Amino acid sequence: MQSTFFTDFLYLTDIKTILFIVVLFALFFVMKQMEKKKVKFSTRMLSATGIGLVLGLLIQVVGGFPDAPLEVPFIAEINKWYGLFANGFMDLLKMLVIPLIFVSIMRVIINMKQGENLGKLTARTLGLLVGTTAIAAMIGLVVGNLFQLGVNSHLVAGEATIREVSSLVDTLRGLLPSNPISAMADGNVVAVVIFAAFLGLATKRQTKKYYDIVKPFIDLVEAFYKIILSVAMTIIKWMPYAVIALLANTIAGRGMAALGEAIDFILVTYIGVALMFVVHLILIALSGLNPFRYVKNVLDALVLAFTSRSSLGTLPVSIEKLTDNVGLDNGTATFVGSLGSNAGMNGCAGIYPALVAITVANMTGTPIDMTFIIMLVIVIALASFGIAGLPGSATMAISVVLSGMGMGEYFPLIAGIIAIDPILDMGRTMLNVNGTLTTAVLVGKSFNKIDQDVYYGRKQVVTEE
Amino acid sequence: MQSTFFTDFLYLTDIKTILFIVVLFALFFVMKQMEKKKVKFSTRMLSATGIGLVLGLLIQVVGGFPDAPLEVPFIAEINKWYGLFANGFMDLLKMLVIPLIFVSIMRVIINMKQGENLGKLTARTLGLLVGTTAIAAMIGLVVGNLFQLGVNSHLVAGEATIREVSSLVDTLRGLLPSNPISAMADGNVVAVVIFAAFLGLATKRQTKKYYDIVKPFIDLVEAFYKIILSVAMTIIKWMPYAVIALLANTIAGRGMAALGEAIDFILVTYIGVALMFVVHLILIALSGLNPFRYVKNVLDALVLAFTSRSSLGTLPVSIEKLTDNVGLDNGTATFVGSLGSNAGMNGCAGIYPALVAITVANMTGTPIDMTFIIMLVIVIALASFGIAGLPGSATMAISVVLSGMGMGEYFPLIAGIIAIDPILDMGRTMLNVNGTLTTAVLVGKSFNKIDQDVYYGRKQVVTEE
Amino acid sequence: MQSTFFTDFLYLTDIKTILFIVVLFALFFVMKQMEKKKVKFSTRMLSATGIGLVLGLLIQVVGGFPDAPLEVPFIAEINKWYGLFANGFMDLLKMLVIPLIFVSIMRVIINMKQGENLGKLTARTLGLLVGTTAIAAMIGLVVGNLFQLGVNSHLVAGEATIREVSSLVDTLRGLLPSNPISAMADGNVVAVVIFAAFLGLATKRQTKKYYDIVKPFIDLVEAFYKIILSVAMTIIKWMPYAVIALLANTIAGRGMAALGEAIDFILVTYIGVALMFVVHLILIALSGLNPFRYVKNVLDALVLAFTSRSSLGTLPVSIEKLTDNVGLDNGTATFVGSLGSNAGMNGCAGIYPALVAITVANMTGTPIDMTFIIMLVIVIALASFGIAGLPGSATMAISVVLSGMGMGEYFPLIAGIIAIDPILDMGRTMLNVNGTLTTAVLVGKSFNKIDQDVYYGRKQVVTEE
Repeated sequence: MQSTFFTDFLYLTDIKTILFIVVLFALFFVMKQMEKKKVKFSTRMLSATGIGLVLGLLIQVVGGFPDAPLEVPFIAEINKWYGLFANGFMDLLKMLVIPLIFVSIMRVIINMKQGENLGKLTARTLGLLVGTTAIAAMIGLVVGNLFQLGVNSHLVAGEATIREVSSLVDTLRGLLPSNPISAMADGNVVAVVIFAAFLGLATKRQTKKYYDIVKPFIDLVEAFYKIILSVAMTIIKWMPYAVIALLANTIAGRGMAALGEAIDFILVTYIGVALMFVVHLILIALSGLNPFRYVKNVLDALVLAFTSRSSLGTLPVSIEKLTDNVGLDNGTATFVGSLGSNAGMNGCAGIYPALVAITVANMTGTPIDMTFIIMLVIVIALASFGIAGLPGSATMAISVVLSGMGMGEYFPLIAGIIAIDPILDMGRTMLNVNGTLTTAVLVGKSFNKIDQDVYYGRKQVVTEE
Repeated sequence: MQSTFFTDFLYLTDIKTILFIVVLFALFFVMKQMEKKKVKFSTRMLSATGIGLVLGLLIQVVGGFPDAPLEVPFIAEINKWYGLFANGFMDLLKMLVIPLIFVSIMRVIINMKQGENLGKLTARTLGLLVGTTAIAAMIGLVVGNLFQLGVNSHLVAGEATIREVSSLVDTLRGLLPSNPISAMADGNVVAVVIFAAFLGLATKRQTKKYYDIVKPFIDLVEAFYKIILSVAMTIIKWMPYAVIALLANTIAGRGMAALGEAIDFILVTYIGVALMFVVHLILIALSGLNPFRYVKNVLDALVLAFTSRSSLGTLPVSIEKLTDNVGLDNGTATFVGSLGSNAGMNGCAGIYPALVAITVANMTGTPIDMTFIIMLVIVIALASFGIAGLPGSATMAISVVLSGMGMGEYFPLIAGIIAIDPILDMGRTMLNVNGTLTTAVLVGKSFNKIDQDVYYGRKQVVTEE
Repeated sequence: MQSTFFTDFLYLTDIKTILFIVVLFALFFVMKQMEKKKVKFSTRMLSATGIGLVLGLLIQVVGGFPDAPLEVPFIAEINKWYGLFANGFMDLLKMLVIPLIFVSIMRVIINMKQGENLGKLTARTLGLLVGTTAIAAMIGLVVGNLFQLGVNSHLVAGEATIREVSSLVDTLRGLLPSNPISAMADGNVVAVVIFAAFLGLATKRQTKKYYDIVKPFIDLVEAFYKIILSVAMTIIKWMPYAVIALLANTIAGRGMAALGEAIDFILVTYIGVALMFVVHLILIALSGLNPFRYVKNVLDALVLAFTSRSSLGTLPVSIEKLTDNVGLDNGTATFVGSLGSNAGMNGCAGIYPALVAITVANMTGTPIDMTFIIMLVIVIALASFGIAGLPGSATMAISVVLSGMGMGEYFPLIAGIIAIDPILDMGRTMLNVNGTLTTAVLVGKSFNKIDQDVYYGRKQVVTEE
């Protein structure tokens, strides 16, 4: 059925669609009241998450828990209209990614003090990202085995095609900014980081001898940085509203039957995510910072990652929380955040492929011996770097890892898992973002760049709108 | 037959092609003489229109009024070479659109005085655009019925495919700048306006506290604005030359037989356009300004719209005329102009779909009762907003409107109309631009932002080249 | 066989692949030692060329001179890993092209002194580029006839499709920047030059009356120019390393059997290239400059062109050599360089199509009379302008020229030549770049803009990193 401009309106004659749109606006009004009463931002975010969850379930109830909710006309229509607010908000956040990264990376390099070292910063960041991914893979292995994923599989085999995976060499070359403008237009984050780093380094070098000539460029970078941060703050203010629509849409769009079949896998995934989360907190604690305070500081970013399922879209919020609440300098925050949204994703490239590999091994009777385990951890750690910057990273990651383990032909077995992917993706994305945030905190701590007065809330560094 | 680089030159051995290229250059020389003798720009524009019309007819005469002129080799070749000047000029104008909009919108917002309101400006602009489109639809309905379009149809049914129409929700999301660089590269005007507005608002906000930091950005916006306007003036100077080639090409390329068959439709369309034009003038008069003076002030933009059939390409000229001749401030002119080239097109989305709907209804015996009429006006008014920013807007509009009226399957009936589309498009585009200009004048007047000394020619505000 | 991330690593178990990667790093170390011992840059470039050649041959030896080297797994893998350095370096150079051209062209125009003339500069540049291409075509004709190319053809006819060639008019319009941002994203050099020229001219014009307003823009152009040149110097320093990998890859990837079959054609091509090179030197000498000194001055650019086979990638190096070693002002260097990388390519659009046309004529018994010769030179000279800015310019050029000579259907006959294209492309690209460099020197000399103290090494103008 062709959906046209006009049919959008015709469907609105379905009273249920209109009703749920009215409900959404009513909830927006509630959020607005909370904002006016100066309820704390984090509280409003958590409230929005609860409201979104209930709203999503309510839509399912009204629809009679259909097997394929998005084929029920009124749910499909609600999904579209909610999406306007949910995805529209994410679009605005994504709008900031390229300008923010470009200008922040230049700025951090230009302002680097004598003795500071870009190479060291990069090495520590990548090391921590890959290291935590390897730990995540091991956790995936352990829980996957404990719960015997796939042994009595309910998952129905279906059709699924392995996406063509480009080789590591091609991937690495794809990250180079052979045309910086098209890299920006394509949203190639790493290429933009590299180009900005070259410009920043050159600017810093010229500053010594030709300060007067390059000063207008430096001033412009500062000015634009101030402005783009201010835009970010404006948009971030709307986050609680968007979270309601984001979460309601994810919950409402999933068939309960599909959920039921994959319930083991969902449970084990979230157990793994929780365990890895604890590992992150332990790492924070080992660095000498209070892990509970850490959670409080970055909570908003985690909630957005969970509800939006977009690491990249969460990036502006992550940077803001690291700067304003954690007390990390903005440059390091942007640098680690940019790399972390492209490499070493703990959830998508760590736990998830490990769980899938265990499942497939159990389904096909592949013995899970020491060789299998060691090889799996190595493959995952390497792949977590190799699939950097590619879209649909989780599915890509399992495809790479299964191929790497010589189990590529079993890909269709996991079609049942892919059907409920968005539910898994919420936890995975949150873990990705938390891995990046943890890395940023650890790297920042190792360079002694975290203002503990800010971290512990004794001083306020609020980026102004 | 494959047209290659070399065949371009081979065809030139056709004496008629060479002759008409020489004629074009001779006419350029005449225009140059007029320029040297300081003949007024508007006079030169009107002369160029007359010359282009005669030249186009002359080519038709030499070709013996063929049914499909562009399949006659020498006319096809002339068309190509004339197109080099015609479309080359339009390309240069289009080159300015994105930079001009980006910098002007930022500038208008940064320079907004206390108490001014971007929301009000947007609301009034969109209201007037949609309102005038609804009036245009009604005029289309009335004249279409009066002249009984399609009752004794000569139009031969042919093949035409309905382009897939995206839903309103998707359209709205497509307007958001999820990546500002790719929005610029794709020429997504509304997304650029939104991104520039965010930047402008943030800059204005930061000005209060951090004036020194953001000043370099503000200064750069001012500098670039001055420069891009100067580029615009340089290119606009060449307009009379391009108009000759533009109009000659449109006239020469249309088959007289096709024109004859659709002569009723052409006549009624232009009667509708003329009536709506009168409505625009009445609106101007009601606002307290002299409508004849208005026509004089914006004449050049109307002539370019008529001959070029490109609302977007005309935008730099529209903005210049509103600024230099009407006395509107440049910011408001750019803002209204940008929105008007994307929403509420009086011609393409107002009169034209109404006429087509009446024609199809008469051809198929659909009763044109009150329900039909009310529904048509509502559908058109909504669609005029919904199809914003999409290319090929007129064909898109009729496709949307016919689908909306439940007459989508009759689309092939109007193939005969589509064959002569460029002839209709001249009037339609002029009406689009006049709708936007009228809206700009009315909005400007309502905010008391029109310098009447400029409007009435008592003071000169000439943008310098 | 699907090459995945993981198989990259599996293949490394082939000891030969690992060995040759180790060899490459060892050679990098040798180059580093030469750098530390302050061996001159040109010497290091020539050493790298020799090393690359030997390394490529060595790979062939180890592979047993296979017919299709890139189908031998270990050579294919080496090729990939070497390519990471070779093409990665070229990517970084290409990254600079658009920003460098954009800012340099604006700068040269803004800084033009009274009495200087952009039109004259353009005319002389294009005239020399097309003129030298015509000479190159004649040389191709002469040597092709002398060596009776194609008379006893070993070339096996194969399949090859003629790419659709767009007409001259369409090509010219494609060069116009109808959207400057997408022109930048697409790497459309001429469109960027035109847009930058418009901005530069407008800035210069406004400088007289509104210096204070446009000054921030001018200052920013100066600052960014300084910075982007500094980035260029950083990347150019790595050139000797890349040259080893670039050349080794080209040599290693060609089948000896294919080379043998086309050995006549290769020899004659390189004889033609050498003769044309002499013509360039004679032109330099006629202008009153020492041609041997010229070679010394631009050697690095020629070596990079030869090994990288990318005119555009060589552009930043060409500009640097013209500025630092030849003593030409950077503005003229950039201007001529930009046009020269898009029009009048002596190798790709001059000698090569002439040789191919002679070969095809001999193979098919087409008489090579005076008409043929005159027509061929004219077609080539025109085409050298017409195919400006199109990718794959050499194959495009022969397709255009064969079509222009009415021999389009014989295109499949030259499939054997296309198989060894990279070997020919090295000489061709070097000649393209040398044609551009010669043009730059001649144009610079005619405007008296070459600092002879720099040219003759009596003064150093070293662009700082």
